[in-house]
Amino acid sequence: MSKQKIALNCDMGESFGSWSMGQDEQVMEWIDKANIACGFHAGDPHIMNRTVQLASDYCVEIGAHPSYQDLLGFGRRSIPHTPSQITELVLYQVGSLQAFCRYHQTSLNYIKPHGALYNDMMKDMDIFRAVVQAAACFRLPLMVLASGDNQRYLDIADNDDVPLLFEAFADRRYQDDGTLTPRDWPNAVLSDETEILAQVRQLANEGSVTTASGNKLAIEADTLCVHGDNPSSIELIERIWHTLNAE
Amino acid sequence: MSKQKIALNCDMGESFGSWSMGQDEQVMEWIDKANIACGFHAGDPHIMNRTVQLASDYCVEIGAHPSYQDLLGFGRRSIPHTPSQITELVLYQVGSLQAFCRYHQTSLNYIKPHGALYNDMMKDMDIFRAVVQAAACFRLPLMVLASGDNQRYLDIADNDDVPLLFEAFADRRYQDDGTLTPRDWPNAVLSDETEILAQVRQLANEGSVTTASGNKLAIEADTLCVHGDNPSSIELIERIWHTLNAE
Amino acid sequence: MSKQKIALNCDMGESFGSWSMGQDEQVMEWIDKANIACGFHAGDPHIMNRTVQLASDYCVEIGAHPSYQDLLGFGRRSIPHTPSQITELVLYQVGSLQAFCRYHQTSLNYIKPHGALYNDMMKDMDIFRAVVQAAACFRLPLMVLASGDNQRYLDIADNDDVPLLFEAFADRRYQDDGTLTPRDWPNAVLSDETEILAQVRQLANEGSVTTASGNKLAIEADTLCVHGDNPSSIELIERIWHTLNAE
Amino acid sequence: MSKQKIALNCDMGESFGSWSMGQDEQVMEWIDKANIACGFHAGDPHIMNRTVQLASDYCVEIGAHPSYQDLLGFGRRSIPHTPSQITELVLYQVGSLQAFCRYHQTSLNYIKPHGALYNDMMKDMDIFRAVVQAAACFRLPLMVLASGDNQRYLDIADNDDVPLLFEAFADRRYQDDGTLTPRDWPNAVLSDETEILAQVRQLANEGSVTTASGNKLAIEADTLCVHGDNPSSIELIERIWHTLNAE
Repeated sequence: MSKQKIALNCDMGESFGSWSMGQDEQVMEWIDKANIACGFHAGDPHIMNRTVQLASDYCVEIGAHPSYQDLLGFGRRSIPHTPSQITELVLYQVGSLQAFCRYHQTSLNYIKPHGALYNDMMKDMDIFRAVVQAAACFRLPLMVLASGDNQRYLDIADNDDVPLLFEAFADRRYQDDGTLTPRDWPNAVLSDETEILAQVRQLANEGSVTTASGNKLAIEADTLCVHGDNPSSIELIERIWHTLNAE
Repeated sequence: MSKQKIALNCDMGESFGSWSMGQDEQVMEWIDKANIACGFHAGDPHIMNRTVQLASDYCVEIGAHPSYQDLLGFGRRSIPHTPSQITELVLYQVGSLQAFCRYHQTSLNYIKPHGALYNDMMKDMDIFRAVVQAAACFRLPLMVLASGDNQRYLDIADNDDVPLLFEAFADRRYQDDGTLTPRDWPNAVLSDETEILAQVRQLANEGSVTTASGNKLAIEADTLCVHGDNPSSIELIERIWHTLNAE
Repeated sequence: MSKQKIALNCDMGESFGSWSMGQDEQVMEWIDKANIACGFHAGDPHIMNRTVQLASDYCVEIGAHPSYQDLLGFGRRSIPHTPSQITELVLYQVGSLQAFCRYHQTSLNYIKPHGALYNDMMKDMDIFRAVVQAAACFRLPLMVLASGDNQRYLDIADNDDVPLLFEAFADRRYQDDGTLTPRDWPNAVLSDETEILAQVRQLANEGSVTTASGNKLAIEADTLCVHGDNPSSIELIERIWHTLNAE
Repeated sequence: MSKQKIALNCDMGESFGSWSMGQDEQVMEWIDKANIACGFHAGDPHIMNRTVQLASDYCVEIGAHPSYQDLLGFGRRSIPHTPSQITELVLYQVGSLQAFCRYHQTSLNYIKPHGALYNDMMKDMDIFRAVVQAAACFRLPLMVLASGDNQRYLDIADNDDVPLLFEAFADRRYQDDGTLTPRDWPNAVLSDETEILAQVRQLANEGSVTTASGNKLAIEADTLCVHGDNPSSIELIERIWHTLNAE
């Protein structure tokens, strides 16, 4: 294949004030899409400015990565919101990131909710609709989890003319129903690099994964989520990139 | 005069979560420009949404009212920032408010810094330049204090093609050099309504104020700042409006 | 009855920075126990200092009123915590309030969790145990909701030698199982003053309430929770006080 | 010398939520006093709990390390406060840390303000008095900067019976007047390990330092401040410890 079909996306800009997280500079050269934190679970105006600049320098697409307002919990705790509060929460954060895109004369390309907000959006269609409404306001695509039932989300998003970007995970084991094996189950996460790269190859070439029970399941994914927390994860991103871009 | 020349501006959207402040709905019908808090000294995504909606309903121009990040101190404490941090601080907040304007299909019209940031900007030209840079990014006018030396600010703002809106105060006593009498000096604030309305009339009709020493001083103001904290202040705003719009 | 048997308790110190809430000064003279916010859902170091001073001046008992860390949601949103995080959350806040008691040479008398933390503690015994553990550290009684099954809570608290204070509500309709009628059901809240005072009298004299279905249910309560949000609520507190202290 | 006369103190517990800072576990075995962050510039209830536990395990004395409320700026920005607000700020934070000491059945030993609050306290006697007042409430010693004029601080602290602990810096160049060479001056920081250990030896054995101009200046210090940010700093702490504890 001459051109990478499945884009790589990675969470970026998750430092805060004097605290550092992630290896944004090393990751940036291997990814296609940077999900940039908007100050509610991580990031601050300076980090956002610097990260948008970095993505722009590497010609990486910029996504807003809004979350519940929870620095202490890093946006991983589900905080009750009404749907209209969800729309407001997302509008605020996406607007703030868009300002930095404008400042660097680049554009914002998509929205990917973070952590608990992402999970809640996938489970609760009222929350999903509320996020779609915010995305519609900016006329931006929304990144969601590819599953066995993409159509359920497409039907709602189409109503507001919001395109969806479906993402798959290179290192998570899928169930027969297309959901991810919960993290607290055995073998939920692929730790062997050979297995991970095999799953990447299968997703890219066949549009499928082999589930926990050994079945082949079709997963249509536009993008793969990778993580850049530590030096070894950077090497893994490189190998995934080479796998996707190999002949 | 058939048309009001000097616009009235007022701080709005300064409630937060369960805490209420101001009487936005009653004030909105008498003013021309609403300075809407952006969540750093007051306001939150829901309050911002509601206040933009209210301003839009009353056809009141919308200004972003960014500040230092200081809910506890209501943005009235000067917190040290480098100039580039000031630009980032303002970009973030203006972007967040612009999202709500977009959501209500209306536009953001200007930027007026709040509290300590406003004071610091008037005193420190590096901070002023940093705010101008953020305003330039949005191609929005910046509201500043009218003083004896408007030209000093115009020279800097012109460099970035940022128009300035000069504001005067109806209820503050001016010094001969065009600055406001410091609040902790005697007679800094006009408390008598007749005096206040006389100052409004003089600003509107003659473009001048009578200073603390009794001299007449030229003050070119595009807008007057009013306050809507309590029931009696609403009545005063009404009288100021009628004074400005009287034949 | 010559002496009031059922103490009145009220949430206090719920202002924050420049935002005011409640009428603490007017309420303080009618109540026995002040539940003082500790800065996580409301209150700040200055408000806490002032409220402890006020309670001390009126010889009102001081309770720490810890909550989830959620100024925006006023502690009314349930935020996921592990039990050990709950203990830590409560330790932090109770310690901070105790400092102000020490400063005013008075003592802290009890702990009453606020809002969602209170509700979660009543529903989830792991959370209840975690709160009890914090109370045990300070050797302070814990205030909980009186229900049809006080013993369930006593059994756990006894393990750590933590005394419980059971509170009832003057203005809430009880179900036959001793729980409060959920707020979104019809007739959940008593709005008629005569009905409220009758429930107060029945609780004080007979140790019972008349439930939604008309049955008489024993409710052993040490204290009644009252609210001081607005002028009419202060009058109601006065009448409740007189009802409890009438011959 | 058979026993270490000058204690080593180090800032500890400066992680926050998912963000990590410092190498507390490795540092703890070499120091005598741990200055533990109280949640206002760093730290959170869980980090505080864990750090108090760690200090207790290593029999290291525990100091409260209160600061301005400024997570974003790590407490390094001076935020205007009245003296009574300073007292309240310190009371709140010291109380919160004391709760964790009580929980681990250990005691709080001293108070050392952090960052901008520390600097402001040394420069502004009203702020110093306000901090002393909080220390007096807890009957705890206060750690301050040893300088050419210790007596100035002793006079104030004595009034409230607050003992002072004077600290010196191993790696900072002193001026003839006993103040530290400002960080933005050349040679403000000693980077050569030999020089640093020589200064440590001179402080311990002679109670003096050699100033920037080559003069010998008496500095009476009870404790030396060390830093544990990175692996090489841990090695330096070890060498300083061995220098102080050598025959």
